[in-house]
This record gives sequence, C-alpha cells and structure tokens, in this order.
Amino acid sequence: MSALQSDQTASRPDGRLLKALKGECLSPPPIWLMRQAGRYLPEYRELRAKAGGFLDLCYAPQMAAEVTLQPIRRYGFDAAILFADILLIPQALGQKLWFETGEGPRLDPLEGGAAIAALDIGNVEAHLAPVFETVDRLRTALPGETDLIGFAGSPWTVATYMIAGRGTPDQAPARLFAYRDPVAFQALMDVLVEATAIYLAAQVKAGADVLQLFDTWAGVLPEAEFARWSIAPTKALVARLRALGVRVPIIGFPKGAGALLPRYVAETGVDAVGLDPSTPLSWAVPHVADKTVCQGNLDPLLLVAGGDGMVRAVDAILEAFDGRPFVFNLGHGIVPQTPPEHVGQLVKRVRGE
Amino acid sequence: MSALQSDQTASRPDGRLLKALKGECLSPPPIWLMRQAGRYLPEYRELRAKAGGFLDLCYAPQMAAEVTLQPIRRYGFDAAILFADILLIPQALGQKLWFETGEGPRLDPLEGGAAIAALDIGNVEAHLAPVFETVDRLRTALPGETDLIGFAGSPWTVATYMIAGRGTPDQAPARLFAYRDPVAFQALMDVLVEATAIYLAAQVKAGADVLQLFDTWAGVLPEAEFARWSIAPTKALVARLRALGVRVPIIGFPKGAGALLPRYVAETGVDAVGLDPSTPLSWAVPHVADKTVCQGNLDPLLLVAGGDGMVRAVDAILEAFDGRPFVFNLGHGIVPQTPPEHVGQLVKRVRGE
Repeated sequence: MSALQSDQTASRPDGRLLKALKGECLSPPPIWLMRQAGRYLPEYRELRAKAGGFLDLCYAPQMAAEVTLQPIRRYGFDAAILFADILLIPQALGQKLWFETGEGPRLDPLEGGAAIAALDIGNVEAHLAPVFETVDRLRTALPGETDLIGFAGSPWTVATYMIAGRGTPDQAPARLFAYRDPVAFQALMDVLVEATAIYLAAQVKAGADVLQLFDTWAGVLPEAEFARWSIAPTKALVARLRALGVRVPIIGFPKGAGALLPRYVAETGVDAVGLDPSTPLSWAVPHVADKTVCQGNLDPLLLVAGGDGMVRAVDAILEAFDGRPFVFNLGHGIVPQTPPEHVGQLVKRVRGE
Repeated sequence: MSALQSDQTASRPDGRLLKALKGECLSPPPIWLMRQAGRYLPEYRELRAKAGGFLDLCYAPQMAAEVTLQPIRRYGFDAAILFADILLIPQALGQKLWFETGEGPRLDPLEGGAAIAALDIGNVEAHLAPVFETVDRLRTALPGETDLIGFAGSPWTVATYMIAGRGTPDQAPARLFAYRDPVAFQALMDVLVEATAIYLAAQVKAGADVLQLFDTWAGVLPEAEFARWSIAPTKALVARLRALGVRVPIIGFPKGAGALLPRYVAETGVDAVGLDPSTPLSWAVPHVADKTVCQGNLDPLLLVAGGDGMVRAVDAILEAFDGRPFVFNLGHGIVPQTPPEHVGQLVKRVRGE
C-alpha cells in the first residue's frame, strides 16, 4: 500500500488514521466512530434545531462543518468524517428526496428502466458543490493531526433506497427488482458508479484524506448477487476513482458480508475493510486481517450499555488486532441514545489513558 | 448420526427427510420449504378468513392440521411442518400476545427481572395441548412417506420478541437488555429452555418425526454474545430434549450466523443446520457440510421472481451439495407474494421432473 498517498500531502503530514491505512502498526490504534457527529451529542441537537431540516444541514457548509467538528473538539478523535448523507447522490441525480421526522428518508421510488434512464448525471457536481465547500472548510478548520474522511454509499446500498423509496427490513424491493430486471438494475449500478466517482473525487480534491464506502445492505445478498451487485460495482468505483487520479486510501464497509468478506477484500481493490459487530474476531484475524487493514467492530449497543462489558469487548478487539495495522471503530453507527460520557470512556480505554 | 431414530419408528419407516437427516445421500434430495403453509396459497387465505384471528387458527387443531396439509396435497413435499407460531411459548408462559392486522405480533414487553420471575412454566403443557392435538391429527392424516416436522423458536429469538414486544429492525431492545442485565437475561433463557423442551418433547410424543429450532435473530449478535445467548441455550435445549428421551433429529437454523456457523454446529449438538440465503455455497460446503447435514438455501425472493434466475440458483445449490446428505429448502420463509406456480416449478426442478 506504499503507493497510496493523500492528495494534499504537500501541505500536511499523514495523521494516525492515514498511517494505519497505509500499513503502519500503531499502538494505540487510531480511533474514530461511525456517526460520531450526531444526535447523541447535545451540541448537535442544539445546532440541528436551528438548521431546519436534516437536508438543510447537509447543504449548509458552515453548519455541516461545525457539526463535523463537534466530536473532534469533545473527544479528539484521530479522524473527522464529513457530515452528509448517502442519499444526496440520488437527489443529485434528480430523484425527489425528503426526510419524514422520526421515520427516516423517503424517495419517489424508481419504478423501472425508464425512471433509471431519466437519471441525470450532468448535474451531480454542481448539485453537490455545498458538500465540497464543507470539506474545504473542514480541512482548514481541523487540527493538523486529524485526518478527514469523505464518504458515499456503495452503489448497491444507495440503489436499495432508490428502488424501495425508503429503508425496509431487508430491502426486498431492490433485490426483487434486480432479479426481475437485471439489465435495468445494471444500468442503475453504472449511473451510480459514475456519479459516486465524480462525487468522491471532488471530495478528495476539496481536501478529504481518506474515503469510506458504506455498503450497509450488502448482507442481504446471496453469493452470486453479492458478487454482481456489491463487489463488481465497488470494484468499478474504485477503479474509476483511481483513473480520476484519486490516490487516498479507500475503506470498504460491506455490512453483513460474513463469510464473503475475504472475497470482497480480494476483488474490490479497497485498501481497508470495516468489520460489523457480528464478524467474529477469531475468524477475521486469520481470514481478513492477514490480507488487509481492518477497522471495527465494537457493538454500538455496548457503547450504550457501557461498564465492564464494554471494557472487556474493547480489550478483546485491541488484543485480537495487536501487532497489525488496525483502526478502532464501532461495527455500525453510534445510536442516538448513547451517553456521551461512554464515548469519552471508550476513547480513554482505547488509548490506555 | 446412526443412533438417531424417530420416536414412532415402530409404526412407520423413515421418510426421505429423516433418511437425509440421518446421513443418507439422496438424489434428488428431500425438499420442504419454510412457511410452505401460508398466505401465498389461496386455499390458506380462504380458510384463514373463516378462522378468525391468526392465533385462533394456531389453537384450532382441525383447521391448523388442514392448513399444514394444504401444501402437501398441492406439491407433495417430503415433509410437512406443523402450523403454529414461535410466540405461542411466551403466551403459554403468561405473557399477553396478540397480532395487529398487517403489522405482526405484539406482546406486553418484559420490563425487567421481576417480569421474568413472574413467567409461569407450570401451565405450558396444558396451554399448548391444542398444538399437540394438531400434531396427532397430522401424523394420522399425512401420507406414510411424509415426515412431520415440529418446531419452536430458539430461546434467544423468542426472548427478543418478549423484551421488545414486537419485531424491530435489529432487535436492539433485547440486545441492550442482555448487556445491561445479563443475570436477568440468563434467567429468561433458563425459563425458555425448559418451556421449549417441554413443548417440543410433547410434539414428538404426539408424532413429530423431526424438530427444527428457528433462531431467526442469531445474526445480530457479536461473537461472545452469540456463544452466550444463541449457542449455549440451544445446547442446553438439545441436551434437555435428549434427557427427556427425545431421539428425533434436530435441525438448528441460526439465521445470519455467517462465519460463526461452524462453531454453532460444533457446540450445540444439533444434527443438521439450516443455511440462510447469504451463506456462500463455496464456503459452506467445506466449512459446514463436511461436519453436518445442511439444509437450504434458495433466496425466497428468487422464488417470487421465478424464471431462469431461479433455475440457475437451484441447480447451483444441487450441484454444491451433490454426493452429500442434504435437504433442499429456502434460506428463509416463503413470502406472501410468491406465485404458487413457481413453487411447483421449483419442486419439479429439484426432482429433475
């Protein structure tokens, strides 16, 4: 992985996240947490109340940057992650998107091939310009040692929402669509690969040091479909990003991939992989950590519960990956009812303070 | 597995499911489908409309037996599975249970240790007597070559509903409860092990030839919790059943277990294991099928879609397990929108007709 470098290395040395992603064994490992900027923080809720809707916040660079910085100030994480949403891409492609209070995202579902053909890639970069401005502000405002993570949803996961129009227990509508009309679904993957490449390349140009691809719904796919709709589009996206000159490390996070994780690592070209909470350490170390940099995987609910159970689980993770390049994280995003003091205790435990 | 035998072997020879579960390689393999009796069948919907509520149907032996028989008449599956619900056990323990139309089960959530201590095991067998009568009627009514499967939820999965009071996207309430109060949660596991053993032993006494344990929510557990709340109670339940004289084969179905499946097989004592649709065949054959009899694992949505995609997936499953003892099934239950003619095509394909 020595060929990897931040696109802004001229201006700053690698932070601890970048070092680990490039293969350095750090003790303690770098730590950041998925959804570290969010509703569990009172300062987030306060700013969110002023911002109007959730999407307004995503598109307001000054406020989005402030929200991104809040957990850095509080906990001194090794990395900040851009405050945005994986569904900004469908919106940039022309699909109607809104958030129902307390219920999550809603989109006008894509009904078939004609709706997919109508998606317009020409507007993506302009539509998402406020996000790039947020990144730019962040790279200036962040402490020099703090790496900045840009992100997007993987094509499969974004497509599941575009087809269903919402989150569902197992994203059956998209799975069924793909079974019934794989040609139209492939066309959707192609559009998403290109749009997401444009989006992420611009994030890196604006100052992102690392990229993460969230494939939250990878785990609902059988092997053949996992290869076709999770691995192949991710591989195409990574290749497209490299072709666009992006050289920063890319973390793939195929949640629920289970025994398919080694195949994902071998075939997609990602530089590191996020492990979900169900991934057993005893299996991940020989089958995944021997091949790539791992990131994870504390159960977010243990962070809610706190106490000795959390401490034991943290120590088990640290011990399992001791002596390897590793990034400490949760196995999924922080949940809103997390007590902020537990996050502080977690950071201290990981850092041996 | 040669020590296993049906408790009613005196009266009938093993059917094809029993033979496969005892280690015979059958070509074609036996086939049955999870939720093969259900809403996708017009004859089920018709009878259901007459029965009143879903629970009324579960407790009406004549109608429950009729519903169980419907898919046997239509498709000639190698096995029938008792029509019942995994939440009859909480109800038998005294927890209030009802079904909201179109929304699924609701229970008065168990709030803590006192509510768990109040669960009453003394009434379980009497409360569930109509289920045993259904089994008895079925064993008489079924064709001699058709094996009869009894079932229950595994303690973990049943407990997730008892704590949350309903199905949730990831059963977080029960996971959090177990983190916060593992002593009370263990007490709940102990009650469920004993109640479920009583329930299943009585099903076998009434004529069930095979038992299946549904651990639908096993996949949300990290490794340590999977060992504690899925494996250990399942192992205790299997041991308790054997102590009660139950000798029929037991199929475990820890949905979403992923890379933890070999550990589940090695430690629980089940005689066969159900694979969910996400379990890769290329991994399951060397890591699971070499140790135990496998059952699975067509994606239920492929049965909805039908056509060439379904045929290819069926053939891939048959080829992967060729020459091993194997039971063809879905990787999860049939969904209501499944066209009944696709089920017929599936059975023909598996049987090479």
